[in-house]
Amino acid sequence: MTNVKPYGERLSAVQRELGESPASLLIVGLSSSMRYLTGFTDEPGERLLVVLVPREGEPAFVVPELYAEQVRADTGFAKHFVWADHEGSHDALAAALKDVARSPGPVLVEESLWAEFLLACQKALPQHAFSSATPVLAKLRMRKDAQEVELLRRAGAIADEAFRRVIETPFVGRTELEIAAVLVDAMRSAGADNTAFSPLVASGPAAALPHYRAGGRRIASGDVVILDYGCRTGGYRSDISRTVICGEPSNEVRTVYDAVREAQQRAVDAVRPGVPAEEIDRVARDFLTSSGLGDRFIHRTGHGIGLDIHEPPYIVAGNKTLLEPGMAFSVEPGVYLSGRFGVRIEDVVVVSESGGVPMTTVTHELLIVD
Amino acid sequence: MTNVKPYGERLSAVQRELGESPASLLIVGLSSSMRYLTGFTDEPGERLLVVLVPREGEPAFVVPELYAEQVRADTGFAKHFVWADHEGSHDALAAALKDVARSPGPVLVEESLWAEFLLACQKALPQHAFSSATPVLAKLRMRKDAQEVELLRRAGAIADEAFRRVIETPFVGRTELEIAAVLVDAMRSAGADNTAFSPLVASGPAAALPHYRAGGRRIASGDVVILDYGCRTGGYRSDISRTVICGEPSNEVRTVYDAVREAQQRAVDAVRPGVPAEEIDRVARDFLTSSGLGDRFIHRTGHGIGLDIHEPPYIVAGNKTLLEPGMAFSVEPGVYLSGRFGVRIEDVVVVSESGGVPMTTVTHELLIVD
Repeated sequence: MTNVKPYGERLSAVQRELGESPASLLIVGLSSSMRYLTGFTDEPGERLLVVLVPREGEPAFVVPELYAEQVRADTGFAKHFVWADHEGSHDALAAALKDVARSPGPVLVEESLWAEFLLACQKALPQHAFSSATPVLAKLRMRKDAQEVELLRRAGAIADEAFRRVIETPFVGRTELEIAAVLVDAMRSAGADNTAFSPLVASGPAAALPHYRAGGRRIASGDVVILDYGCRTGGYRSDISRTVICGEPSNEVRTVYDAVREAQQRAVDAVRPGVPAEEIDRVARDFLTSSGLGDRFIHRTGHGIGLDIHEPPYIVAGNKTLLEPGMAFSVEPGVYLSGRFGVRIEDVVVVSESGGVPMTTVTHELLIVD
Repeated sequence: MTNVKPYGERLSAVQRELGESPASLLIVGLSSSMRYLTGFTDEPGERLLVVLVPREGEPAFVVPELYAEQVRADTGFAKHFVWADHEGSHDALAAALKDVARSPGPVLVEESLWAEFLLACQKALPQHAFSSATPVLAKLRMRKDAQEVELLRRAGAIADEAFRRVIETPFVGRTELEIAAVLVDAMRSAGADNTAFSPLVASGPAAALPHYRAGGRRIASGDVVILDYGCRTGGYRSDISRTVICGEPSNEVRTVYDAVREAQQRAVDAVRPGVPAEEIDRVARDFLTSSGLGDRFIHRTGHGIGLDIHEPPYIVAGNKTLLEPGMAFSVEPGVYLSGRFGVRIEDVVVVSESGGVPMTTVTHELLIVD
């Protein structure tokens, strides 16, 4: 096992979780969970690279030869099953699974493991049932420690700074992609390692599409523009949405904006330890429903955030997870009027003993940009 | 079905492939293959969004409500099974699979589909075997059409331009991450939509780690530096490696460099229609072996490239795929001397009737940088 902090402790914690379940084994590919448990990370790819964590005993890496030296140096793990490109991963994977899968219980797989690798594992362990590792991994990862919260705070401060800069620049006559580039540059120069995701800049009718990215559309006077972006720093992410308007808002835009703003604030105010995650969603949704806009709020209220941009806890009807100090998630109600415009306001909050602490703090006032 | 070009034709082609196999169905999540087949794409995430392509009849999208309008507008597909966040995807997926899985043959899944979604599909179709869709998808995607080749060429030209710019900047005293930022900025300003992957800038001993990214190490006089980077334009990617030296090379560095350069050139010269992919690998490997460096060439010679940075055909021992006009792949032998230095030279080539056409053309001379 590794002595590198905090990975040794996290691996012990996940093995305790496995020990309290029937599971025999956890399989994690290149992903935020590999980073969380071992410190090693890279972009996922077609070469099989997984860490196998048995319910007890040493975890094992199955690793392509060209990564082997790096994984050894970075993780301090003892067990490696190395395969070369010309051999393929089949034999190394089979040997590793045989070594660690010593009990007949189900095999848990990290959610984003590639299907190709899951199929290979299922073939190598035909007697085992396979199921999702999300409940086990979420239990650990949902509660952020002080160092993780500090990184979330830093990522949020960079996003705030980018907002202050973008609203100083002209919007009308520029494309959505140009505004997205301003956000990216501002986050980089404010110290971000990278973006958290490709920024969403949705103007005019595109603002009614919640997952529209940013395109060649030229922003016009009168447009409502949703900005939804964030950065990564030290692996941890920020995520913020603000809605601005080019010129004077109509009464309708003002009314919808005020309703979303109030729904978001009520939801943030409802955050405290012991409250079920779904309750935060209910607060935002009830307010928008009472404003006659409930059927135009077509997504959940939020998602957890950390090493991943979306992770548990999800702030959605049916999620009865009780909020605990250290949990971090977005609160982002939105209203979408098809073909016309949309409004979304989002901050990430971290649960503290006394309530939700926002990681982004720039104004919720409806700003008029040029 | 969609009439949007070229997606209707590609879907017809993939259905012909399915028709010639026992497969009942193809499942593709948010990935380059979804983009290739339908034109729709986004970053993969935890919300289930898949297209199901039956061996005959209409394909169906299973789509989260907040994407539904966008997918309809972008693809022109008729069949949608929409699910809302508060419902979860279970029922929509089950209904869609029931609708399209009309024969008992195996279900093919795209390689990068998330394990979570594969497990859900397996649960919904307990009587079906599941296997990899890579052979079917690769057969279509490997041969690039003229428009795809043009995009590969444009992406290569941008990478060339970034190389010309980076070697004009000082290396010694700057960190690897700073050099990586120069490459990223140069590609952006030369017209790239994005990077193809996070650039590798590996200096000194780190150059002996083939998949080392770029870190805080400050480049010193005498260092060998491997630059491995590329960009995306119109979805298609470039990938280039060059090795430079800060100051005069030692005899050993010169000898290794010349061997890698010769191995790479011989491999490129061996490219022509009808040659098996593994033969290109053999040519590079035999030359390095004859130079006494074969055991330090610890990866395959190359990988296909297109919408993905790594895709078939892989240039590796055992791959008997016969090269055809339109196939595109990297040729990138390397030598890695642990703890000391490494050398890699890489160009992407496209197979033409008369041989391999390089997409990047900046010099293979060993350049001395400041």
